[in-house]
Order: sequence, then structure tokens, then C-alpha cells
Amino acid sequence: MLYQGKNYRSVWVNERKLFIIDQNALPYEFKILELENIQQVFAAIQKMKIRGAPAIGAVAALGYALAISRSKDSQLSENINRYYKLLLASRLTAVDLKNGLDAVKWAIENESDPKVIKTAALQAAEKFVENSVLECQSIGRYGNQLITEGCRILTHCNAGALATVDYGTALAPMREAHYCGKKIFVYVDETRPRLQGMRLTAWELAQEGIDHAIIVDNAAGYYMQQGKIDLVITGADRIAANGDIANKIGTYSKAVLAKENGIPFYIAAPFSTFDRKLQSGKDIPIEERSPDEVLKYNEMELSSGLSTAYNPAFDVTPAKYITGYITPAGIFNSKDFYKLWEMNIREQSSRQS
Amino acid sequence: MLYQGKNYRSVWVNERKLFIIDQNALPYEFKILELENIQQVFAAIQKMKIRGAPAIGAVAALGYALAISRSKDSQLSENINRYYKLLLASRLTAVDLKNGLDAVKWAIENESDPKVIKTAALQAAEKFVENSVLECQSIGRYGNQLITEGCRILTHCNAGALATVDYGTALAPMREAHYCGKKIFVYVDETRPRLQGMRLTAWELAQEGIDHAIIVDNAAGYYMQQGKIDLVITGADRIAANGDIANKIGTYSKAVLAKENGIPFYIAAPFSTFDRKLQSGKDIPIEERSPDEVLKYNEMELSSGLSTAYNPAFDVTPAKYITGYITPAGIFNSKDFYKLWEMNIREQSSRQS
Repeated sequence: MLYQGKNYRSVWVNERKLFIIDQNALPYEFKILELENIQQVFAAIQKMKIRGAPAIGAVAALGYALAISRSKDSQLSENINRYYKLLLASRLTAVDLKNGLDAVKWAIENESDPKVIKTAALQAAEKFVENSVLECQSIGRYGNQLITEGCRILTHCNAGALATVDYGTALAPMREAHYCGKKIFVYVDETRPRLQGMRLTAWELAQEGIDHAIIVDNAAGYYMQQGKIDLVITGADRIAANGDIANKIGTYSKAVLAKENGIPFYIAAPFSTFDRKLQSGKDIPIEERSPDEVLKYNEMELSSGLSTAYNPAFDVTPAKYITGYITPAGIFNSKDFYKLWEMNIREQSSRQS
Repeated sequence: MLYQGKNYRSVWVNERKLFIIDQNALPYEFKILELENIQQVFAAIQKMKIRGAPAIGAVAALGYALAISRSKDSQLSENINRYYKLLLASRLTAVDLKNGLDAVKWAIENESDPKVIKTAALQAAEKFVENSVLECQSIGRYGNQLITEGCRILTHCNAGALATVDYGTALAPMREAHYCGKKIFVYVDETRPRLQGMRLTAWELAQEGIDHAIIVDNAAGYYMQQGKIDLVITGADRIAANGDIANKIGTYSKAVLAKENGIPFYIAAPFSTFDRKLQSGKDIPIEERSPDEVLKYNEMELSSGLSTAYNPAFDVTPAKYITGYITPAGIFNSKDFYKLWEMNIREQSSRQS
């Protein structure tokens, strides 16, 4: 992603050190953090210094592999299990977290030589991350086919380069359309309580020079009703086998409003976000976060202090509200997911060979 | 309304001085402001120190009448027109503003004696305000019939005592149910950008001891989908003859979500909010407020400063999403509005006689 004209990723490794862009500091400050050990990786995910389903998957894979590579040989097999369990508990809803950890674990499960394990873990993590970037670029190319000249697009939360390793999921088609010279306009839901739209998506779009305006979450329905939104694209944190998706709280509301107003509603996601084993969205665990995220902003009290708040971080959008899924293998509807599984398996095996 | 166990109104006159509770200071500070002249009344409405359709109507009527009563006799007829135009331009969407001013103007339009004009203006304003309180109490009694024991109610923005003179419109049935000993629970939409739900509604409910929780606007759909909301009640800023209503931005979204989830959606409003002359909601003017209301909070920058924001203050909810209208004359649907006009006319003439 661009920052002041220079390219960055949301997470990367340099000389066996793990770095992230601190997403809690944005947009006030562009701050690079080193995560020195597994506890710091855990805390960075939990405190949302790095967030977004694919980015969580990537930092988990890299952090897990680096911790394994630093482990004493005598504690290696114990640590492989311990670190896995620790990181898996850092967030609840995004399945990419588990998929990132599994990519590393599966690569080493039949190995016994500590040296081989450490090398294989790092290679598997790096491959998971590079795949993620390629997949996002592919999502961009397929999604771009939906975007016409002058298209006005609504997006919710941040499913941009920051939420992935680079390029984004929901924002990838917008980047691609912009690079192709199409004139587009993006309505950015501010996305309370944590304002990822206001703080992160608007920041990414401004850095790219893509025309946009921030709106409160309450105003999305108004602009749909006014005929000012042609297309909605959001990311997802988990996609069940029947096409139900979990994503940032408020996604369900936008999907219902889009359907009511005849506006196509697309989900953009890499393979790591699909959870084939989950029958439906009803089974997706929803993380409830602290009331303080609603009641305070940067330590400033917003309410009287006499009231509590409820703070579900995600909601589930049933498949019936979703026009299609923009994936690295093309645009699908939920009835055709079986084709996606076949292509993904072929894709994975061709990359592994 | 209660504050620390003592009763207040949102606006009142004492010894010919006009006072309001400063709603921009809440919930941090309970501050009483004197509005000393017509310019201060204008500024208080425009800057939303006093807001809520019926409260705007009341402060406009009182401020207008007091300014007339203080006017030099030689400038009286000029000022009657000048003050009217000035205050009418202070806000755009709520029709109560015009109705409050008209109540005063119509009472004096056939008078020529300055002394009679001044007395009649004050009497008309006081009557408008007292009617408003009675109407809200009546709304409370009728609306209470919709509320069952254990009822879980969602409300948007603040349509409480602060938004009226006392008692509220949407909050009146909840107050009444609470006074009758019913156990209820209120989900309070925080209502971005100005957080009237978080700052004002939650504060009123806390003062009354009514059980509630604040949620972000994004979460209302989630709780509806989860079957945790039994009833939605909001206020309105203007009701057209066909039953379309304008209310705080986000109301339309909640109405669509309520319909999708089979939850009854009611509007509570006094007679002053009805605009019989307006055929439909399409003709209601929507106020666009400053982007800073979205991009800043209490002077604190929320975005990067590189993006703009759009800030429509209201939206229009078509009648088809509205289950019924809780009025001072009972609960109606839009097809029966003609009965309401008849009852209102009878009511008004009986009060005037």
C-alpha cells in the first residue's frame, strides 16, 4: 500500500524480525512496530494493532513460525502446541487466524528434526503470506469487472491493504479500477465503534488518490434510497459453506438495505476466509468486546458514565442478501461454492508442487 | 424530566426570562442557559443547544413572543415579520418550528393595539407550550398500551423530555410503562454523528432508573436479527399527509431492518409535527450539516484530515415501513389520518373556547 508515495505491507519480516504498521495509531501517526515475541504477537492481535481477517492470518502465521524458529530444541514440540493455542485464542471470529496457524502446523507435523521444523515453519508462513498477496491481486482483477465508469461504491469497515498483507479484499477491486483509469467514488462508512472506515479506509483511499467521502453508518441507507450507490463491496471474517458470512458489526444492516434498494452486494475474500466445515452462519462465534470501545474514544468519556453499552464486534449476513463472492478464482454465488473448493484444491496443489 | 430527583423542563419562562437546558453540554454538565434576545434564540436552535422537533417549536414560540413583547411599539409590526423570518431559517426539517411561530403569529394577526399584541403573543406561546406537554403525556398513555411486561424496545436519537418540553414523544410511552411498574429494557442507538442517543437518551433513562444499554447504530440490526428487540419507537421531525416521516439520519435504516425482522415500528409525535399540506416525504427538505460534526468530536480530529464527509441530518422513512403513529389522540395508521385531522380540529377548538 502507498504511504506518502512509498510502498508498504501491513505486516512483514526483515532479517527474522517481525514488523507491523500500528493500526491503532492511524491516521494520526504512521508507526511501525516490531513484535519481538509470541506474547507481543498475541497482544497486537487482541488489541487490534493489527486487524482484518487476512492480516490476522498473516501475522499469526509469521509470528508463530518465528517463535518456533527461536524455540529451544528441547522445548520445541511443547512450544509448537502452546504457541498455537495461545494465538488461536487472540480473536474469536475470523477463521483466517486458524488457517494461518494451520498452514504452519501442517507443514511441520510429520517432521522430527528441529532444524527442518524451524526452516519448514518459516517457509510455510512466508508462502501463506505471499499467497495472500497474490489472492488479493486476483480479487482486484475479478472485482474490477463489476465496476463501471463513474461507479459509486459503498464499503464498510476496512477491508483494504491494512486488513490484508497488501492490496486488500473489498478495496482491491477499487484499487484495480482506479489503476485502470476508471473514475469511481467511494462512500466510506465510518464504522463505529472503532471507526476503521474513518481512520483506515479513508486514509488508504486518500493515499491512493481515489475520490471518496466519509459518512456515518446511519447515512448508508439514505444514500442507497437516494439512488446514489451503485454497488456495495465488503470483506468478511468467515464464510460458511452455505454462503452466510460474518463481518464487522453493521454489515448485515447494509446488506438488508442494499437488497431493499435493489443494489448488488458483494463479499470479497481470499481462500483463507472460507470455512467449509461450517454449515451455516448460525455457528460462527461472535466476539463481544469491551463496552469502553463504545463509551470512550481515545480515553475521552462519550456518555454520562451512568450507562453501560453492548459491543458485539461482528454480525452474520445470511447468503440470501449476498449477490456474489469475489474470490481469487473468480466471482461465485454460494450455490457454486463446490466449484470453488475444487479450484482451490487444484490451485493449492499446483503451488505446492 | 428528572435530574438528580428534581423536575425540570427543557425550556421555560420565569419572570419574562427564557431559559433552556444546554443540550450540547450534556451529559458532561447540567447547564442552564438564559436566552436574552432573538439572536440568542436563533443561535441556540441552530447550534442545537436545544433540539428535537417539539422543543424547537416551543423555544421558537416563547422566544418569538418574548421578543415581540420587548419590541418598541414603533417597530412592532416590522419586528413581528422580521423575527418570524429569522427564527424560521434556524433549522430546515422540523415543521414544529413553523407551527410554534404560527401559533403566536395567528393569535395576533388581527390585533393592532401594541399592548394587546404583546399580551396575546405571550399567551399564545404559553398555550402552545402547555399543549405540547399535555400532548406528550397523552402520547405516553396511548403508547404504553403497546408495551408488555418485559418488553425490549429500541429507540433512535433522543425523542425524550429534552427533545420536547417535558416527558418526550418516543420516550413518553417508556416513562409511562415504567411508572406503571412494568419491567422494560431499552436499546439506545448512540446516534452518530452527534450522539444524541448516547448523550441524551441514555442520560434521561438513567435519571429515571429505566434499564437500558447503549449500542452503536451498526448493532441495531444485529439485535433485531437475534430476536432481542420486540418494538421500535422513534420520534419524527415532520410527518407528511401520506404518513411518510422525516427523522434523524438512520431512522430509515432501522425501519427497513424492523420490517425485515417482523418487528413493529412506531412513530410518536404531537400534532405540531404533522404537516397536512405536504403530500409525501419526497417534499421534506433535508438539512445537510457541517462535515466537522462527522470528522471531529469535541474539537478532536477523528480522521486523517485528508478526507471530507457528507452529513445529512435527517432521512425520510416511507409510510410502508411504519406500523403506526402514536399521537395525543390515540394510535393511528396513515390511512386513518383524516380522523386525526378531525379530532385535532375539534380538540383545538375546544381548548380555544
